[in-house]
Amino acid sequence: MAYLSPQPYRGTRDLYPEDMRLQNYIFSVWRKVAESFGYEEYDAPLLEPFEVYAAKSGQDLVSNETYQFVDRGGRNVVIRPEMTPSVSRMVAARRQEIAYPARWYSIAPFMRYERPQRGRERQFWQLNTDVFGVESLEADAEIISMADAIMKAFGAERKMYTIKINSRPLINTVMTDYLQLDVIQTQMMIKLFDRKEKISHEDFEAQAAEIFDDAKRKDGLHKIASLLKVSTIGDLPSELAESPAAEQVKQLFGLLRDYGVAGTEFDIALMRGFDYYTGIVFEVFDNHPENRRSMFGGGRYDGLVGLFGVEPIATVGMAPGATTTEDFLRSHNLLPKLSSTTEVYLIILGDAVKGAQKLAAKLRAENVRVEVDVTDRKLDKQIKTAIKKQIPYLLFVGEQELSEELYTLKDVHESKEQRLAFEQLVITIKDYRHHEKDLLDF
Amino acid sequence: MAYLSPQPYRGTRDLYPEDMRLQNYIFSVWRKVAESFGYEEYDAPLLEPFEVYAAKSGQDLVSNETYQFVDRGGRNVVIRPEMTPSVSRMVAARRQEIAYPARWYSIAPFMRYERPQRGRERQFWQLNTDVFGVESLEADAEIISMADAIMKAFGAERKMYTIKINSRPLINTVMTDYLQLDVIQTQMMIKLFDRKEKISHEDFEAQAAEIFDDAKRKDGLHKIASLLKVSTIGDLPSELAESPAAEQVKQLFGLLRDYGVAGTEFDIALMRGFDYYTGIVFEVFDNHPENRRSMFGGGRYDGLVGLFGVEPIATVGMAPGATTTEDFLRSHNLLPKLSSTTEVYLIILGDAVKGAQKLAAKLRAENVRVEVDVTDRKLDKQIKTAIKKQIPYLLFVGEQELSEELYTLKDVHESKEQRLAFEQLVITIKDYRHHEKDLLDF
Repeated sequence: MAYLSPQPYRGTRDLYPEDMRLQNYIFSVWRKVAESFGYEEYDAPLLEPFEVYAAKSGQDLVSNETYQFVDRGGRNVVIRPEMTPSVSRMVAARRQEIAYPARWYSIAPFMRYERPQRGRERQFWQLNTDVFGVESLEADAEIISMADAIMKAFGAERKMYTIKINSRPLINTVMTDYLQLDVIQTQMMIKLFDRKEKISHEDFEAQAAEIFDDAKRKDGLHKIASLLKVSTIGDLPSELAESPAAEQVKQLFGLLRDYGVAGTEFDIALMRGFDYYTGIVFEVFDNHPENRRSMFGGGRYDGLVGLFGVEPIATVGMAPGATTTEDFLRSHNLLPKLSSTTEVYLIILGDAVKGAQKLAAKLRAENVRVEVDVTDRKLDKQIKTAIKKQIPYLLFVGEQELSEELYTLKDVHESKEQRLAFEQLVITIKDYRHHEKDLLDF
Repeated sequence: MAYLSPQPYRGTRDLYPEDMRLQNYIFSVWRKVAESFGYEEYDAPLLEPFEVYAAKSGQDLVSNETYQFVDRGGRNVVIRPEMTPSVSRMVAARRQEIAYPARWYSIAPFMRYERPQRGRERQFWQLNTDVFGVESLEADAEIISMADAIMKAFGAERKMYTIKINSRPLINTVMTDYLQLDVIQTQMMIKLFDRKEKISHEDFEAQAAEIFDDAKRKDGLHKIASLLKVSTIGDLPSELAESPAAEQVKQLFGLLRDYGVAGTEFDIALMRGFDYYTGIVFEVFDNHPENRRSMFGGGRYDGLVGLFGVEPIATVGMAPGATTTEDFLRSHNLLPKLSSTTEVYLIILGDAVKGAQKLAAKLRAENVRVEVDVTDRKLDKQIKTAIKKQIPYLLFVGEQELSEELYTLKDVHESKEQRLAFEQLVITIKDYRHHEKDLLDF
């Protein structure tokens, strides 16, 4: 018979316990920050009807990147490529019953059929946080503060990242009033700005030139050049600086100052790919010289729930991803040392397995996480296994230990051994766990 | 324009925050028990190549119940309907590097295209725990102990559930040596035993009669009748009682007694649906009079990794599901009262939002989970929102409170108000949280 390949499906990763420790660390930081801002967890199904994405998610994603198929009942479905349409659907379904402002978060897997590459996998995990029902800029400021709090909770220093901020209404004012583009030209220009960092300055200029009508080209290119020099909202050309859209961005920067969020930057060239944004948009950039890129972003998308036939609801959200977070932590040397969740490994001397199992049950009743070696192997093999698993404590249990009720506990990191009675065992191991929890700041 | 339906995909559920609290409670109990036995978390991708299931998962599942499709690259893939083939694949891929015994668990979503009904959803969540590399019955006893520990951790009393135990080698001895069935007849008889609880006694007997050759029918039916009266492993007819397979089951019951697992029962009619089991099998039954049924099970499946071209590995595992657990907890009145993860809701008096945000940041720095009402609404509306969200504490913050640094904290459950300084606030709220954690036994 032909054997099956043990490799995972292309573009996806198996998460072995040592990989999972890291993912769980990232998830626990996300969870801690989201909950500290009063966000409550929710989840939506893995599959959604195709129509949900056809409506608003952006052309590329729907036509080339979705995992789309027809189920056994003839329904056209998609493995969700993002959470925003699903959470909008959920809010729409209970439009009347929900207590607003609703602050919701989820940590969930998504799939996109992309060419696998660094920082991009076909299955990926995201935190999604959204606040529903707040029309004022307080909501935008809160979501951006939370993005900043997440970076800080991972140990990032200010210089390691920048939060770039722009506004969709301001982009519209720029395109329509300032550059005098029509609807089609505006779409093209937004797409071009979106690619700005990926192409050369010359290509950017050449492609921008093609978008303008002949009569407006020279003036338009001149205006774009001066726009791209703008580095604070106060630097905008006067025709733009007094627009209501610019005024709103100024107010937002004021709020962010009040909340103590530093390291934010105005960036008129920041577009955000999705079609559904209606207000402030932002992206968090990695400043590492070898990894300069957008890590994640978010913004205001009032009205997406309207697709499902209910009145629009003011909404601001964001979605950091696990893979980019891992890359960030790795390149800035911020990964913590993560050991096994198991606290102690029982090494069995001779024939003591029955007594050792009883001791293990007693330790579990005290909330200690215990693995028992039931393999009847030589001592050195048992020890080697525990060390390979990165379990912090070894406990040696033989007939003598059981009858004296004194056990030898070895601290693997400190290579230190102690003979302890049961109560002391529990205290020593729990002290270690509290210390480790403190490190993660829980 | 036509609106989209806000309903989730058929047979799946949206998990709103109040549903998620219950799911998170179930997951946290699973996680706690699995980790207390030294199991470490892993995860596998949502998609697997179709061939992985074609090989071993049982005919019905593969031909009628899988979510199967061809991806944009022409690969035939399946949304995983169970974890066992995936985890076997993962172990096979690192056969040499893994430290044995490997104890692994995952909590993950799966999909099967089934007719939606109570306790069955198209997307469902399971805990999977597996121990790899232990040939002795210690592994079988450990997995069964863990099933029992999970039931107890949910607050279940002994009379609420029964753990039924059987053995695949014993089933084979019964079919081949005792009932003298050939391979095809054995398959038919196993399928019939599997349906025993779902059909009448008369139907069972009639269908059993049809399986036997004419010459063996009378004797065979007589033997089946006496087999079905067997209630302990000691009651087996003597031709079976001395078989190595029966001997092994006896040893297992001995180990379970040593480990303090009561409420186990031998059940010669227990078959388990999947084809891959090779040793002890078990199922946990709900004894509730209105809900008598199998909740989950497991067993030994040495050799499944062999599909991927490596040497077999001794393996025992089980997989409880979230939906059946929820049904069990509900029907036995074991659901705990679950409030919001948010601990305190800041009610803003007048114009104090800026100061309140600073206070919220200080509370978050002390690991308090705080939501701020930024809606500028009347007091009673703000209070109503917090109560609807089931947040345990309200904190009233106005200009006066901020300048005096004394805040009014209201305990919603006890309808009690206190005026407290910042340090007292933190202590009061943390005391509540520790109390709640104790209830969940963490």
